[in-house]
Amino acid sequence: MNNITYIKDFTEWKKDFKFYVPIRVRFSETDMFGHVNNVSAFIYFEQARIDFFKDRRLFMNFDDPNISGVPVVADLQCDFHKQMFFDDQIKLYVKVATIGRTSLDIHYMAINEQDDICLTGRGRIVYINRHTGKPMPLTDDIVQKLTN
Amino acid sequence: MNNITYIKDFTEWKKDFKFYVPIRVRFSETDMFGHVNNVSAFIYFEQARIDFFKDRRLFMNFDDPNISGVPVVADLQCDFHKQMFFDDQIKLYVKVATIGRTSLDIHYMAINEQDDICLTGRGRIVYINRHTGKPMPLTDDIVQKLTN
Amino acid sequence: MNNITYIKDFTEWKKDFKFYVPIRVRFSETDMFGHVNNVSAFIYFEQARIDFFKDRRLFMNFDDPNISGVPVVADLQCDFHKQMFFDDQIKLYVKVATIGRTSLDIHYMAINEQDDICLTGRGRIVYINRHTGKPMPLTDDIVQKLTN
Amino acid sequence: MNNITYIKDFTEWKKDFKFYVPIRVRFSETDMFGHVNNVSAFIYFEQARIDFFKDRRLFMNFDDPNISGVPVVADLQCDFHKQMFFDDQIKLYVKVATIGRTSLDIHYMAINEQDDICLTGRGRIVYINRHTGKPMPLTDDIVQKLTN
Repeated sequence: MNNITYIKDFTEWKKDFKFYVPIRVRFSETDMFGHVNNVSAFIYFEQARIDFFKDRRLFMNFDDPNISGVPVVADLQCDFHKQMFFDDQIKLYVKVATIGRTSLDIHYMAINEQDDICLTGRGRIVYINRHTGKPMPLTDDIVQKLTN
Repeated sequence: MNNITYIKDFTEWKKDFKFYVPIRVRFSETDMFGHVNNVSAFIYFEQARIDFFKDRRLFMNFDDPNISGVPVVADLQCDFHKQMFFDDQIKLYVKVATIGRTSLDIHYMAINEQDDICLTGRGRIVYINRHTGKPMPLTDDIVQKLTN
Repeated sequence: MNNITYIKDFTEWKKDFKFYVPIRVRFSETDMFGHVNNVSAFIYFEQARIDFFKDRRLFMNFDDPNISGVPVVADLQCDFHKQMFFDDQIKLYVKVATIGRTSLDIHYMAINEQDDICLTGRGRIVYINRHTGKPMPLTDDIVQKLTN
Repeated sequence: MNNITYIKDFTEWKKDFKFYVPIRVRFSETDMFGHVNNVSAFIYFEQARIDFFKDRRLFMNFDDPNISGVPVVADLQCDFHKQMFFDDQIKLYVKVATIGRTSLDIHYMAINEQDDICLTGRGRIVYINRHTGKPMPLTDDIVQKLTN
């Protein structure tokens, strides 16, 4: 885990994860190299992030016209440490790494049944005003739910 | 092409196709068996059907609240004749096979660069009233554009 | 369930299913119409079929050069009865409908948490000799495992 | 394009791209938010990278047992600047940013028909000995083809 800019002390970094989503690899998520396609890592990150928000009861009312803020993915990043294969049962861990005024940074870690770290990653979510398209401050309620 | 209920006379059936969409297989559309995943056939059917409708200037105003009819996929069916591989350039042919009062049947044929038939298929599209969820009659304008 | 050629008596047909796979819809499996993309139905069929074979301990040695027979999807068919949505928990039922000399017919049924039937389907699997590419007879062992 | 660590001077960075792959968004690559799913960005990066290597006649003999080196994706990263939509025609630019002893860094840029930059990204490819699983030096031939 050297050279990964978003991980300073790996033991600390790993210890901070609590929430995870069980992910089972689908056959359609493999590719002709015989393993899980690199793209599928981001399918799993997305799924885990949405489940994490749901668990915190956050960002659940996309259709509510009274809520003007929506979370938008600003960037995504994944380091591939170990191949995953069809039928693997993955634990996809998610945590909030940092919270800014209008955005937050989410970190990811995928672990297989042999307890190998297959993926690590991160991505920034910006809270956007859907009417103006501009970033808006995260509310106290959001920050509280994120840091619980 | 025996035993395919939607093809009576294959030579005739094939001759009727005029419109096609060029499809290039994406790497992510392969699977661990080394070929194009069976599921991807339906990605290509969908793409070709939408392009066909667009070519006929049909069903293009999904967001227009004044248009109450929307085309809905009722069923889909595909026969796999020959494997497709990464980087294959496919011609995905589409035609309207039959037009009913509230629905139409669309047929599909995929041909690779060696002129092999890789896929044949069909599927019914029902014209649904988005407010009631019930089938509604295809308008004269739609029928005309479909039969042009 | 009228007009579906592979279902004669629906009550009987439904009763025959025993094995199912729990499938949770992934966010990436939705499309811009707000529901589960039609293509995803076949992702779920594929997953359920593979899990069914695994449960019966069938077709598990794809890499074993001593086994010359491989199961190949000859056709697939799906009827869309009800929309599925993100986060739906689907039960994907699978059963062997008929067994021929060199092939078998598999049926599918997807049921959501409200017990609505969302999908029904079927597809033929042909047992192919990987060296000749020709159909070969299903062995007694296979037939026994399929009918258990 | 501030805060993107892999872009120092954006005008320079952009000017360096020569090779691109035309990508047409598929309907199945959208999601329920009405735009192209974030995951699809990595489908396009992968496709463009493979096409780039093919254009340089590099890494084309995956099955050749005499070639022990294979390119492996070590990490991937994408910044999302502008939403993409169904039917968008994207130009996916690829370039080699840096070449090390056993790895190279590839940069990506996606531009839509209105000349908006939709995506920028990068990823490291490591040249791995398939027998040992360890990084091995890029050959002179590879370096030459990459820098042509």
